Formats: sequence, C-alpha cells, structure tokens
Amino acid sequence: MPELPVAQVLERVDANLDASVERLFDILRIPSVSTDPAFKDDVQRAAQWMADELAGLGFEAAVRPTTGHPMVVAQHPGPGGDAPHLLYYGHYDVQPADPLELWNSGPFEPVLVDAERGKRIVARGAVDDKGQVMTWIEAFRAWRDVHGTLPCRVTVLLEGEEECGSPSLDPFIQANAGELKADACIVCDTGMWDVDQPAITYSLRGMVYQEVILRGPSRDLHSGMYGGVVVNPLNLLARIIGELHDANGRIRIPHFYDDVIPAGANEKAQWEALGYDEQEAMADIGLPSADGGEAGFSAIERQWARPTCDVNGILGGYTGAGGKTVIAAEAMAKISCRLVPDQDPKAIAENFRRFVTDRLPAGYTAEFSDIGGSPAIRVPTDSPYLGAARQALADVFGKEAYLIGTGGSIPAVGSIRKYLGIDSILLGFGLEDDKVHSPNEKFELVCFHNGIRSNAAVLARMAGITKSKG
Amino acid sequence: MPELPVAQVLERVDANLDASVERLFDILRIPSVSTDPAFKDDVQRAAQWMADELAGLGFEAAVRPTTGHPMVVAQHPGPGGDAPHLLYYGHYDVQPADPLELWNSGPFEPVLVDAERGKRIVARGAVDDKGQVMTWIEAFRAWRDVHGTLPCRVTVLLEGEEECGSPSLDPFIQANAGELKADACIVCDTGMWDVDQPAITYSLRGMVYQEVILRGPSRDLHSGMYGGVVVNPLNLLARIIGELHDANGRIRIPHFYDDVIPAGANEKAQWEALGYDEQEAMADIGLPSADGGEAGFSAIERQWARPTCDVNGILGGYTGAGGKTVIAAEAMAKISCRLVPDQDPKAIAENFRRFVTDRLPAGYTAEFSDIGGSPAIRVPTDSPYLGAARQALADVFGKEAYLIGTGGSIPAVGSIRKYLGIDSILLGFGLEDDKVHSPNEKFELVCFHNGIRSNAAVLARMAGITKSKG
Repeated sequence: MPELPVAQVLERVDANLDASVERLFDILRIPSVSTDPAFKDDVQRAAQWMADELAGLGFEAAVRPTTGHPMVVAQHPGPGGDAPHLLYYGHYDVQPADPLELWNSGPFEPVLVDAERGKRIVARGAVDDKGQVMTWIEAFRAWRDVHGTLPCRVTVLLEGEEECGSPSLDPFIQANAGELKADACIVCDTGMWDVDQPAITYSLRGMVYQEVILRGPSRDLHSGMYGGVVVNPLNLLARIIGELHDANGRIRIPHFYDDVIPAGANEKAQWEALGYDEQEAMADIGLPSADGGEAGFSAIERQWARPTCDVNGILGGYTGAGGKTVIAAEAMAKISCRLVPDQDPKAIAENFRRFVTDRLPAGYTAEFSDIGGSPAIRVPTDSPYLGAARQALADVFGKEAYLIGTGGSIPAVGSIRKYLGIDSILLGFGLEDDKVHSPNEKFELVCFHNGIRSNAAVLARMAGITKSKG
Repeated sequence: MPELPVAQVLERVDANLDASVERLFDILRIPSVSTDPAFKDDVQRAAQWMADELAGLGFEAAVRPTTGHPMVVAQHPGPGGDAPHLLYYGHYDVQPADPLELWNSGPFEPVLVDAERGKRIVARGAVDDKGQVMTWIEAFRAWRDVHGTLPCRVTVLLEGEEECGSPSLDPFIQANAGELKADACIVCDTGMWDVDQPAITYSLRGMVYQEVILRGPSRDLHSGMYGGVVVNPLNLLARIIGELHDANGRIRIPHFYDDVIPAGANEKAQWEALGYDEQEAMADIGLPSADGGEAGFSAIERQWARPTCDVNGILGGYTGAGGKTVIAAEAMAKISCRLVPDQDPKAIAENFRRFVTDRLPAGYTAEFSDIGGSPAIRVPTDSPYLGAARQALADVFGKEAYLIGTGGSIPAVGSIRKYLGIDSILLGFGLEDDKVHSPNEKFELVCFHNGIRSNAAVLARMAGITKSKG
C-alpha cells in the first residue's frame, strides 16, 4: 500500500478550523447530561449526532442500545492491506451544569471568548469530552477530504455513561469484543503538560471506594444521660478515620504498601525535570502549600505514584441549624483509596474493612458497601504504537512529548486491556485550568487546533508501523 | 390561714386523669421545635396555649416577647397570708423530631400505647418537657377544683428556647427579677430512679456546645488530581476529633480538668449504694456494656460527675447515594462538652477552640459558633423546701425519695440561683428509657399520673412550711 502523505492533511486541518469549531458548537448545544433522567432524550440525540457525523465520513456507524444510555460504534475500513487497526474510545455525555448561576454564559450555549492564550471555547463538555472527541473526528475529516480515506483501519467506541460510572461499558465491550478488537486504543480524556508542551499519560491510579456505616446503641441517645457512659459512634468513626494515617501521612491499613513498587531513580529524575510549580498549582486552589499525603515524596509523586486514603463524605447526628444534644446511633463515611500498581483492590478493600472492624468496641457493628474498585494502570512506554504517537506529537509541536502520570482513574482503559487485550495510548489536549466538571468549563482554541493536527499526524505515523501481527 | 386538706385533691387528680391526658395531647400536637425557624409560628402557638391554660385556672398569664421565642409568665396569688411563694420553671419547646422514619407514629400525633408498665404516651415532648409541665398544671387544676384556690402563691415561668440554648432566659430573668422572685423554685425537667422509686436531683452537669467549620482549599477538588497532594478537610476534622480523647478516654483539651473536683469517698459510697444495674441499663439501648468515657470511673460517676466531649453532628462532602470522588473544601462538626463543678464554660470553650486551631495546617481555617454554655450546678440538700418536697413524695409513694445526680444540664437552675438568689428543687417523673430527644419519645402514663399526684402533695407540704422570711 502506498504511503499517504500528511502535509496536505495538516493544511486542510488549518483551513477547516472555523468549520470545525462550528461543528463542535453543534454537539455542545445538546445537553447530554447522563446522570439526570430529565436529559435522557438529549443523551440519545447526542449519540445520534455522533453516529451521523461519523457516517458522513464514510464510517459504518450505529447507535447501539444498552440497558442505560446507548453506545455509538463506527467502523472505517481504512485503505485496506495491513494498515494498523486503531480503536478510539471517548464519551459524548457530560456532567450536570449546576451551579448554573456561576456560569458567565449558558452552559449549553457555546461561545468563543478572548483570553490570555487567545480564544477559548466555553461550554459544558468543551473539553470533557466532546471537544477532545472532535479532535479525532476533524482529523478523520481532513484525511478523507484530502485522500478520500483514512490511512488506518479505525473503530470508534463512544459511550454515554462515562459521567455516571460507565455501568454498561464492561458488558458491552465483553459482548462485542470481536468487533472492537484492534491493535491499539487511543483515549483522549487526558491533558497536556502545558499549552506548548504535549504529553502522553502512561500511568493512572486505581481506586477502592467503600461506604461504611458504624452502628452502636439501638437508638439515638441524650448526651446528658449517656455522654461519658457509652462510646459515641461519631467520635468512634472520627477516631478510626484519624488512625488511617500516621503522623507522616502514611496509611496504616495493614499490608497497604506490600505491593507498591517504589518509583525508580530514573522516574523520579524525569518528574523532577518537569519543573512542576507546586506553589502556582496550590495558589489556584487557595492554599499556600501542598501539605497532604506522605512526607518525603514530592507533590507530583504523591499525585501520580503514591496511594491515598481520602474521606469523600461523612454524615452523622444532628446537622441542622443550632444544636441538638444527641448521641447518634450511627455514623456514615464514604472513603476511597487511590491505588498504584500493583495494589490489589480486593485485598485493599478487605484490609480496610478489617482495619475498621478491629477498632469496634463490643456491641458496635460496621456495615460496608462496595462503591467501586479498579486497579491502577501503567501503559508500557516501549510499544511501537506509543512510539508512533510520540513521533506524531514531535512532528506537530517540534518537541518531544512528556510522559506523565495522572492521579485520576479511567476505568475504560482497564476494561479495554482486560476484554480486548490491548493497551491504550492516553493522548489528550486538556489543560489543568480547564474547569472540568465545574462552571465555565473551557477548551483553549489553540489546544483544540493542535489536537486535530496531532491526531491527523498520529494516523500518518501509525500507518507507518510495520505490523508484526499474523 | 386555715390549712387546706390534700386528700380530696388527690382523688380529684385520679378522677381527672383521662381529661388530663387529653389536654396534654392538645399541646403535644403543636410542633414547637424551637431550633428550626420553620416552626416559629408553632412555637408562638404553644406559648399562647400555655398562657390560656393557666389563665383558665385563675392565673394572671401572659405571653411575653423576647428577641427570640416568647416567655410565658403567670401569677397566682394563692390563699394570701404568709403562704410560701413558689416559682415553677419549665419549657414548652421541643427538640426536632428527625429522623422521622424511625417513629412508629407521627411525632406530633400523640398516642397511648400499651407496654410492659401499662399505657404510655408517645410523642415528641411527651416527657421533655410538656408532659412534665402538665404534671403541675393538672395539680393546680385539681387544687382549684376542690378548694377554689392554690395553697401557695405560685409564679410560672415557661420558656420556648430550652432546646436551643436558652439565649433569652438570662436577660429575661434579670430584667424581671422583681416579678419572678420567690421563696424556692420547682423544676421538672428531671427523672425518677425507676418507675416505683421517686428521686430528687441535686447535681446537674453544665455544658459548652460549639459548632466548627473547617475550611481548606477554595473549592471542592477532584480526588484523583488532589488526593495525596492537599490535606483533606474531612480527614483533618476526623483526626482532630480523634485526638480529643486519649487511649483511656481522658479529654486532651489543655486545662480541661484543672477545676474538676474529684468525688469524695462519701459521695462514691452513696452512688454505690444505689445499686445501679449497668448491664440492665445498657441492654435497654442494645449494648453489652458501658464502654464510653474515662477508664477507672463507674458508669454512674461518669454520667453524673465527670465531664465529657461528644460529637453531636458531623457533615462534609458527598453524602448521597453511590460515590463521588470529591475532596470537599469544608467540613462541619457540632461538638459539646458536659461540664462538672467548677469548670468554667468560657475557659473550656476557648481551650477547645485553641485545641482545634493548633492542629490546622497552613492555609486552613476554623470558624466557630457558640451554641450554648452553662456551668454545672450542685443544689443544697438541707433546705426546708427540699425537705417538704421529699415528704410529699413519701406521702404519695410510701417511700423515701433518692437524692441523685444527672448527666444533663438545666441552665435555668444556674440562672435562677444567680439572678433571683434562690435554689431549685429538681423534681421530675421521667424514666431513663423515655427516649428523650429520640424517635418514639414517651412518658409512662403511671409516671404522668404520679407526677400530678406528687405535685399536688408538694403544694400541700410547701404550704405547711413556717416561713422564716421577713
């Protein structure tokens, strides 16, 4: 198969930018809030919009039902021959827009706003994830406009439940593994190092999320009659939570660190070289310094490569106005641990539960609920597909991409590894200050533009891989 | 002045019981929750109901405004001559009824329920304090029905803010001291030893109640990006609460025990002699043993004579269904200390605040609100008024009343001592298992009945005191 040149494709991307923005605005106008049943029809409409868009580019595209919101699956044969087969995973649903009063313009009325880095696109979903998904779709369009086809075989999988826990994703991937199986997966839900510096994310933390309800006396008690007599479930829960960390911020759940692989000197040096400005990052959230987590580790290492144990919610007793002198019968906390390779979510969950129950006095019980769990992921950095993506970024930016970690979790990456047996390349163009999940979410126009150019270049570099598969 | 006999009055009490219950039900139906502004009109309505009821018994009664909920003040001249003048203090407000789902019937729809000790009255306020206030009012009614007057001069003071810290009580008593001044005060907010054994309470714990809101980052954060990086306000609050007690249950607030007077050998022997059955008391609330509070003290001593520090409410982060991976910007707790003589509420509050702020990392703040505070009280046990009350209880029950302590606080007792210069007789008919402040609060019908009889007898015995005043 003759190699298709990329230069004209990139010119086409540049010439098309205004129209690309218009198309992005079209999909941003559909309020596809997946977590709120009131938007069910809009979610369906957004799925159909994506399928139609891909069909218009020569994909065989369909909206596929699930027990929740639908999937969009689209197939493009590419040029034929032994071109690599890429799976693109993204999502077309968005977070709720509230609190609405904090938006400067309507969350579903996208606008271009002038700011310090040029124009920015402001709307719910601008970067998470519609804007990022459109960086591929516009790259596909430019390839097709110039060469009539794509240089690789492409499968697109878009889900509509990413913002509500992806309940249908695993069953769908498992049931359709034959159709979705590819050579590598490209995932766009990540960010750049900064506006000029591209990055590929190679490590993601996992998670164990547990709810615990401690119960003691059979009913709420008067603190005058029972204070100092019985163990107060709220004090008890607080004490147990307090004991989860030692004075150095190290987590005291037994065996918690048994499988944690310490970062190597090379990895640490690489992080050091990134020149992360801790004070600037903290100033953005109103704090003078990054004082959480384990002593003796940099903030970057604590975020990307160290496990955590955080209370995400706590509730007990009287919480209205004024006071009530009650000793509550029960107390609830939602507690999650971010995990790193090779911690086992099941073992951590069990040891957490034992840590709590070991601290209960006679007659006190703890009821636990599993809210979620997924292992951490580290993508091999030596695969030809990741190499091709790095080359493509160098082509577009004139500099090497950083390999970075992220403290968050993208469960789809684990599912794709588990059910399709392939690794993901986490290639995204968001910035730290994009206000993901917050009012005035934005995507810098320059990031959107560079994202399209990069994805166009990635397709060219991927097409150049000599496949070793059978 | 001729002595008015009590026997017919007691008969009248017995004959009137059903009607007395009906009247109590009337006032229980008014949801006079003082701590929640939504019930403001109901609180006012309850005050008016009390004033009307007393006016109907020949009192000069009025609802008197304060900056908060009103007071009810009522005066009855009694028979004239040198009959003693008694002040009755109680409250017509109630605690919030939540959690509503744990009530077997509506909290403001009083019912009579069959139980092991006969019928019981179930409703919010059944015993605390409407039912107890009605034991006097029904005793007044019986005296008036039989003799056309009361055997003593009587002043009634009812407040509507007892369950929200009594902010107006001190200023009101101070401003109206001339009108309220009497020979002795009778307070009903206490309990019996058990259903057959009357008691007079001579020691009361005080209280310091504080709300604290810890604040850290300027907004809620994603736990993937900031977990392990910043100090989580919920973990921090839990740790600070955990540090309030040492491993022996001793409170670690500096100077907390400086002014605490240890119980003497006599007092301890007296408590020992009461034969308190810890296991039975704990079984009633579903616990095998009384494991709270300080090691090395009996449960009775911990309840009556040792100070405490209890969390009454805690709230932060996401507390709905499922999970949200949030690091909340703030966390709230309501924390109260029960005090014993001679702890100073102001000093304890200040030291508590310092204990919290000393544990905040840079950039974190704590906002405190005073919810209430009062010192502990010990009433002299050798006054003629207390002696008359003990005689009256012996008349009704055929046995001597126990002199007991209580773990609760009745700030009014301190205020009445301070501004009117008189001691209170703490004469109440509640039981330990009355579920005060809890769902399904109840008052045993037999306790209500004996309470009315006892108050009728108290009036007779008080009238028999030869006054030594000028």
